[in-house]
Amino acid sequence: MRDIIAALDIGGTKILSALVTPGGEIVAHEQVPSEVPRGPLDAVQRIAASLDRLLAGNGLGREHLLAIGCSVPGPIDRANGIVVLSPNMKWYDFPLRAELQKHFPVPIPMDDDANCAALGEGWRGAGRGLRDFIYLTVSTGVGSGLILDGRIYHGARDGAGEIGHAVVLPGGPPCSCGGAGCLEALCSGPSIANRARDALLHADETLIRTLVDDDPSRVQCETVFAAAAQGDAVALDILRAAGRYLGIGMANVAATLDPRAIILGGGVIAGGEPILGPAREAFRRHVYPPMRGTELRLAELGTFSCLWGATRMVLDDETA
Amino acid sequence: MRDIIAALDIGGTKILSALVTPGGEIVAHEQVPSEVPRGPLDAVQRIAASLDRLLAGNGLGREHLLAIGCSVPGPIDRANGIVVLSPNMKWYDFPLRAELQKHFPVPIPMDDDANCAALGEGWRGAGRGLRDFIYLTVSTGVGSGLILDGRIYHGARDGAGEIGHAVVLPGGPPCSCGGAGCLEALCSGPSIANRARDALLHADETLIRTLVDDDPSRVQCETVFAAAAQGDAVALDILRAAGRYLGIGMANVAATLDPRAIILGGGVIAGGEPILGPAREAFRRHVYPPMRGTELRLAELGTFSCLWGATRMVLDDETA
Repeated sequence: MRDIIAALDIGGTKILSALVTPGGEIVAHEQVPSEVPRGPLDAVQRIAASLDRLLAGNGLGREHLLAIGCSVPGPIDRANGIVVLSPNMKWYDFPLRAELQKHFPVPIPMDDDANCAALGEGWRGAGRGLRDFIYLTVSTGVGSGLILDGRIYHGARDGAGEIGHAVVLPGGPPCSCGGAGCLEALCSGPSIANRARDALLHADETLIRTLVDDDPSRVQCETVFAAAAQGDAVALDILRAAGRYLGIGMANVAATLDPRAIILGGGVIAGGEPILGPAREAFRRHVYPPMRGTELRLAELGTFSCLWGATRMVLDDETA
Repeated sequence: MRDIIAALDIGGTKILSALVTPGGEIVAHEQVPSEVPRGPLDAVQRIAASLDRLLAGNGLGREHLLAIGCSVPGPIDRANGIVVLSPNMKWYDFPLRAELQKHFPVPIPMDDDANCAALGEGWRGAGRGLRDFIYLTVSTGVGSGLILDGRIYHGARDGAGEIGHAVVLPGGPPCSCGGAGCLEALCSGPSIANRARDALLHADETLIRTLVDDDPSRVQCETVFAAAAQGDAVALDILRAAGRYLGIGMANVAATLDPRAIILGGGVIAGGEPILGPAREAFRRHVYPPMRGTELRLAELGTFSCLWGATRMVLDDETA
């Protein structure tokens, strides 16, 4: 074996690295903790060490590396390889490409995680064969990757797909972006936890209270799903409302872009029917009739979606 | 002069036809009434007669015609040249291309009016030089054309750009599409007239009442603008609310697509500051901060935008 590609999925908790053949087969992969407090330069050192380990384990050296595809959280400047702002990583204007190229002087195409996941799902997951679809992730944040005419659409400033910050309820709850009533403020994991904390403060009778030992600060989105799984009415109401706004958000993106499908991923989606059922129902009710045929699908690649997308970027990159 | 292009802008009131040189210069144009009740086949006859007149007036015959670019209202099937549904024209599944080709056996690229206007503004108007912008028309309906990476984006079923049917106020006023709270139900001309009629029924004191001689059925969107121009508080409130939702709608499309500019056209926009001021303010307030740089511009081509877009389609059409 001679030439090999590397793929990286950099996230706030862990960094996944993999070696992939030019034919698209994963040869080896490993995971290292992100250790955010140690800063971006330390992360680059640990990424380099991780890739060196993977290369050595396969009888390869740095000279065999053709390119590195890199998925990063948050807005980036693709042309210059800069992570503009990653609240999860606490990276600000960090020249990731230049720092990685000190170790590996190869092409390093980069994109944000939602775009990489979209690319991955389009290649090997729920979007296979589709020229036009939206990958929508509902998790700590709400973001999307737009595959239009078979390619990622980046917009004028690499910012396209920020559907989480479209307003679906004017005057609604405050959002982390400074706005109010954004989709993210209504159906993200933290927003669901916020609704549950409010319910505890309003002295509603709910299993959520028992699960957190009457301590609102311990409420997580997962707590709400756990209570809903046992039929708790307050939890089910909270998830029904979140699902309804998610459905309206999907209806709005369908009216705007007329995609073949919307592919849903992320931790909140993994919560399943208590939120997906109401989301599908609201979508059907609110979508502009000509777009009713838009399919709602679940993502298929799980934690590997960004890694596959990072690989696909290298294969598509003309400079690689 | 030998070879010539024709451009058509078919609308519910009038049909504009023009002859254009391959270099993009209008040689002659004329306008005929749409005469909707006489049906689509009659319209095709009158279009043919109009083009024959223009050709003869320039010493040309049908054999000199290279192609016809055609702008039509409402959803179309571009591949098959069919006007799927045009409520304004009362055309349903009408094979416009095939019928026109009985007279003129040349390539006839077609697109809907919002896409044509976007193409026209991008070529000769407010979008010159921009690779990524949205043309948003606010008139009887609310629609848009999306220019993404320098081309019209059509979506999976030629339906992209139906921003007018994105929901911006869940549970809001009913929309012609069967939904509720759509952007179109909140800022289109008819929706503004509806708000004014409601105000008359609620016995509000307003100049609108005087302007229509106390007959709510005579209220038009123009009546509201006329009252606002004289400082009428009820009219200004109605336009402020409509402008606010228009601003939210623009903020949402900016978050979704990260365009360089949003170009505003259509009769309601022509009403000017009473609606544009509040729209700009709401846009600034609601737009996701990274997209604050999105420029809001006014369309420049007026009634000629679709004709220029239809011409551009021919010049871009590889089959032409």
